[in-house]
Amino acid sequence: MTYQPPVRDFAFLLRDVLKLEQYGNLPTFADASMDTIEAILDEAAKFTSEVLAPLNSVGDKEGCTWNADFSVKTPTGFKEAYKALVEGGWPALGSDPAYGGQGLPHVVNLAFSEMSSAANMAFAMYPGLTHGAYSAIHFGGSQEQKDLYLPKLASFQWGGTMNLTEPHCGTDLGMLRTKAVPAGDGTYRITGQKIWISGGEQDLTENIVHLVLARIEGAPQGTRGISLFIVPKFIPDADGNPGERNAVKCLGLEEKMGIHGNATCVISHEEATGWLIGEENRGLAIMFVMMNEARIGVGMQGLAQAEAAYQAARDFAKDRLQGRSLTGPKNPDGPADPIIVHPDVRRMLMDSRAIIEGGRAFLFWTALHGDLAHGSPDEAVRQKGDDYMALMTPVVKAFLTDKGFEVCSNAMQIHGGSGFTEHFPVSQYLRDVRIALIYEGTNGVQALDLVGRKLAANGGRAVMSFFAELDAYVEAHDSPEMKPFTAPLAKAKGELQEATMWLMQNGLANPDNAGAASSDYLHLFGLTALAYMWCLMAEAANAKIAAGETDPIYAQKLTVGRYYMERVLPETTSHLAKLKTGAELVMALPAEAF
Amino acid sequence: MTYQPPVRDFAFLLRDVLKLEQYGNLPTFADASMDTIEAILDEAAKFTSEVLAPLNSVGDKEGCTWNADFSVKTPTGFKEAYKALVEGGWPALGSDPAYGGQGLPHVVNLAFSEMSSAANMAFAMYPGLTHGAYSAIHFGGSQEQKDLYLPKLASFQWGGTMNLTEPHCGTDLGMLRTKAVPAGDGTYRITGQKIWISGGEQDLTENIVHLVLARIEGAPQGTRGISLFIVPKFIPDADGNPGERNAVKCLGLEEKMGIHGNATCVISHEEATGWLIGEENRGLAIMFVMMNEARIGVGMQGLAQAEAAYQAARDFAKDRLQGRSLTGPKNPDGPADPIIVHPDVRRMLMDSRAIIEGGRAFLFWTALHGDLAHGSPDEAVRQKGDDYMALMTPVVKAFLTDKGFEVCSNAMQIHGGSGFTEHFPVSQYLRDVRIALIYEGTNGVQALDLVGRKLAANGGRAVMSFFAELDAYVEAHDSPEMKPFTAPLAKAKGELQEATMWLMQNGLANPDNAGAASSDYLHLFGLTALAYMWCLMAEAANAKIAAGETDPIYAQKLTVGRYYMERVLPETTSHLAKLKTGAELVMALPAEAF
Repeated sequence: MTYQPPVRDFAFLLRDVLKLEQYGNLPTFADASMDTIEAILDEAAKFTSEVLAPLNSVGDKEGCTWNADFSVKTPTGFKEAYKALVEGGWPALGSDPAYGGQGLPHVVNLAFSEMSSAANMAFAMYPGLTHGAYSAIHFGGSQEQKDLYLPKLASFQWGGTMNLTEPHCGTDLGMLRTKAVPAGDGTYRITGQKIWISGGEQDLTENIVHLVLARIEGAPQGTRGISLFIVPKFIPDADGNPGERNAVKCLGLEEKMGIHGNATCVISHEEATGWLIGEENRGLAIMFVMMNEARIGVGMQGLAQAEAAYQAARDFAKDRLQGRSLTGPKNPDGPADPIIVHPDVRRMLMDSRAIIEGGRAFLFWTALHGDLAHGSPDEAVRQKGDDYMALMTPVVKAFLTDKGFEVCSNAMQIHGGSGFTEHFPVSQYLRDVRIALIYEGTNGVQALDLVGRKLAANGGRAVMSFFAELDAYVEAHDSPEMKPFTAPLAKAKGELQEATMWLMQNGLANPDNAGAASSDYLHLFGLTALAYMWCLMAEAANAKIAAGETDPIYAQKLTVGRYYMERVLPETTSHLAKLKTGAELVMALPAEAF
Repeated sequence: MTYQPPVRDFAFLLRDVLKLEQYGNLPTFADASMDTIEAILDEAAKFTSEVLAPLNSVGDKEGCTWNADFSVKTPTGFKEAYKALVEGGWPALGSDPAYGGQGLPHVVNLAFSEMSSAANMAFAMYPGLTHGAYSAIHFGGSQEQKDLYLPKLASFQWGGTMNLTEPHCGTDLGMLRTKAVPAGDGTYRITGQKIWISGGEQDLTENIVHLVLARIEGAPQGTRGISLFIVPKFIPDADGNPGERNAVKCLGLEEKMGIHGNATCVISHEEATGWLIGEENRGLAIMFVMMNEARIGVGMQGLAQAEAAYQAARDFAKDRLQGRSLTGPKNPDGPADPIIVHPDVRRMLMDSRAIIEGGRAFLFWTALHGDLAHGSPDEAVRQKGDDYMALMTPVVKAFLTDKGFEVCSNAMQIHGGSGFTEHFPVSQYLRDVRIALIYEGTNGVQALDLVGRKLAANGGRAVMSFFAELDAYVEAHDSPEMKPFTAPLAKAKGELQEATMWLMQNGLANPDNAGAASSDYLHLFGLTALAYMWCLMAEAANAKIAAGETDPIYAQKLTVGRYYMERVLPETTSHLAKLKTGAELVMALPAEAF
């Protein structure tokens, strides 16, 4: 069976755990009753499983093709699927009604994105980046730019890309060389080579809007001299339709380990015409709107591939007959038992669920804070939403992708030798998901962002607020039903707080201590955040059971939640022990000794 | 720079840590002075880096080709490299002089195998399995069979394969269906389909010797009715040369995630002529000679790919300029610092070294026990060698491959986006190594073998002997120089012993407890074993330093060893906590709930 979207789990999260209906006072939530949302999710499940999922393997095997005329052909069927996506009105879900969108909460759009990405990650990246370009222009563009580009991007009629990386610089954007020369007419001539541009060229949309980082002639060196430009593939004519071809072209595609269906392009700007977005030399701030959205999206990809891989492994484990249960045959009339009877197989499936369901809650809970940051009438709620979005973004990105990769690898392990062949889908999931640990800032960069920037921002306001929320929650939920959840959370929170204190004391004395601790700290943070999510889910499940609801999902949540507490969360202790050893041994060998 | 064999590390291990020269009383060691061994290793390094390594990427990109005449073409250059391997006399290293071998210790041959596998895993599998077939016939064949086959296999003139898996059975060999019918002339007619046969067909050798598990007509069901047969592709004529074509053919190749240069074949036996090895219905015991050798070999593959990936990552980290050190520029005249200055990059490199160097010691220490088991004149040493080989084999296989995969993934991470492209070698290392967690018994099967069979064998003699060895070592090495190594070892050993007691008490009561604990137990065991190895290496390094030796390798060993103790070993605590929660939550959900 191919991927089936976990609609029931989305509904549980949105309705029972996050209780979306309490936010009817926010404009984006006003029209979003849970019944409406669930109807949308049902339709989305149909679309993604029936239209996108069947093309996933096609995209992997066929890949994209670069032609000598600088055009790129996407895999068979992608064009038709993209057309169906646009015509189905899916692009509108999360966009501003002022530009043709439906204006639903981001958190609802995210559920659609997770389904799309699980069904076909390489395909889903095209609209994903387009939405990012939409957001950047929505945030930083002039009204004229918004009027011209946003309706086309919001509807996915035009595609959007992110042109950051150059051959010699990725993480370190200060070294960026692409230059912009004022043309005298308000436009700029952009020249330089960009690499690893996802969807940089394709045959899905009638135009492509590149958002390009470049340095205006004479601008300061380093990151303080970087501006952001709109460089459309076809320059819009007076009616806003694609006009003259711009001097931007795709010189070739990367051969990659995965996401073959997405065109990863070398893009050459050869005195291409560009329009400045926002102020000169302030481009990074706008690009980071797109980047932060992308980071949440990448965390989502880790989760999405994990869900798809888990489903494949679960199906295989129920079908494959091999060996007998250690406690006596469970399928006595068959030649062997299904391998799901074996505790080590079950352990991998339970690990997967504990991570996926907890990770999904964390992703949606974070995204909801993003919605509140934008839409709440209450300033304190908006500030907390902003604080949490900033603090949690690196954790969502890195923790969900590191763990998503582990889940995909375990899914392959459950498949045994079959999993290593390309007859089963799990190799593709594992190969595709691996990029998510790298792009939009490697997971190491996320960890450094967390310990070096996000913890200290506003005097530590965000992390202190999170700790206070956890303390209050633990205190308020000490019933016998909740104790098995809140007691482990309290312990993990204590370890996270200890690690935070250690960082404050030792990171200032020697910044290498912060760097050496960063990845373990991020994982300790992620594990603790998921423990909190499992508390929230247990609370919701307990309430349903107390109310007499008999859907087995509620009892299952309690079981998987307890599993998380007892069999996943103990990893916090190792992370704390490791990080407290500091930088000394990490940095003890000179570089020449490697 | 491509892979460079770590000859210096091999020499340190064999000469200073394992002190091979003390075993001059064993026949296989008599001619193996360390000077001879080091000269061989130098030559081996040249051969593997110059002949095998350049073909690694060719094999990956080109793969093997199946032809309609049932032949298989290996990648360009493999044939010539194989010829050079044979002509260079490399096959003889570890084989019995009675059949043309040089009769060196296995531990020396293993160093050559590690280099070959690191240089080109897919290629090295052809001779690797050939050596396995050699060992199985050497152990279980009749004198006539040995005289006919062993000289050809020992010289790699003929290839060898292992025909176990069938479409419906891999782990569970009791379900095997391939049948053998006595032909009346002492031979059998073998009929059935085997899958995933590495090197099942190729163009490297003039003949291929399949070792085939099959059930003789009328034999008992299950594993007690399985016999082992020699099924040569060409039936040897009176002079022992390839004669009549046998009815065994390759019906196709698998498409796989990695090891593209190795032909993974569907092999059809269609009343093929086979010769029984050993007794009827006792085939598994002989096949397990090959299997156990293969398991050590697979652990070695995990280590080998980790070494190759580490080298690529280290080179990249020294070359790639990006960002500045947190403690001030280290390359002030350049546009940025090499990324090796960043603590999180350094952490991944140090993790890799701690695992690779400790893992290599564990692999060689285990293999040396195999040599002692065969060759020692002292019965107690032989018994301990046997005990340790049996106990450590699943740990070597699973721990070194799980950790090897992690190292390869970290190596990709250090490469950033470059690592995900196929322009750099690290994607291939990651894809190739992934099979090592699966074949020759998945790592979950290894864990079950460890807790279900190896721990309890002979009343727990092997594990008790290992604990006693660790206790004695810790007690005897309490100097200030050794305390930083032996104190963490003592703690880990205490946790491992606690876990072992827990298993004894709870595994009998409910076998699912053993299954649920098995993977965590195996990792706890592997971590403890590597801690012991780091003690042995620290001891050797301290002795060298005390003797005034100034080679920096000794001080580096102390640093990496302390890093292992403080930044890797703490994982034991999480494994212990997890495993002691038992099977209850692992098995709590019914199978239908997945």
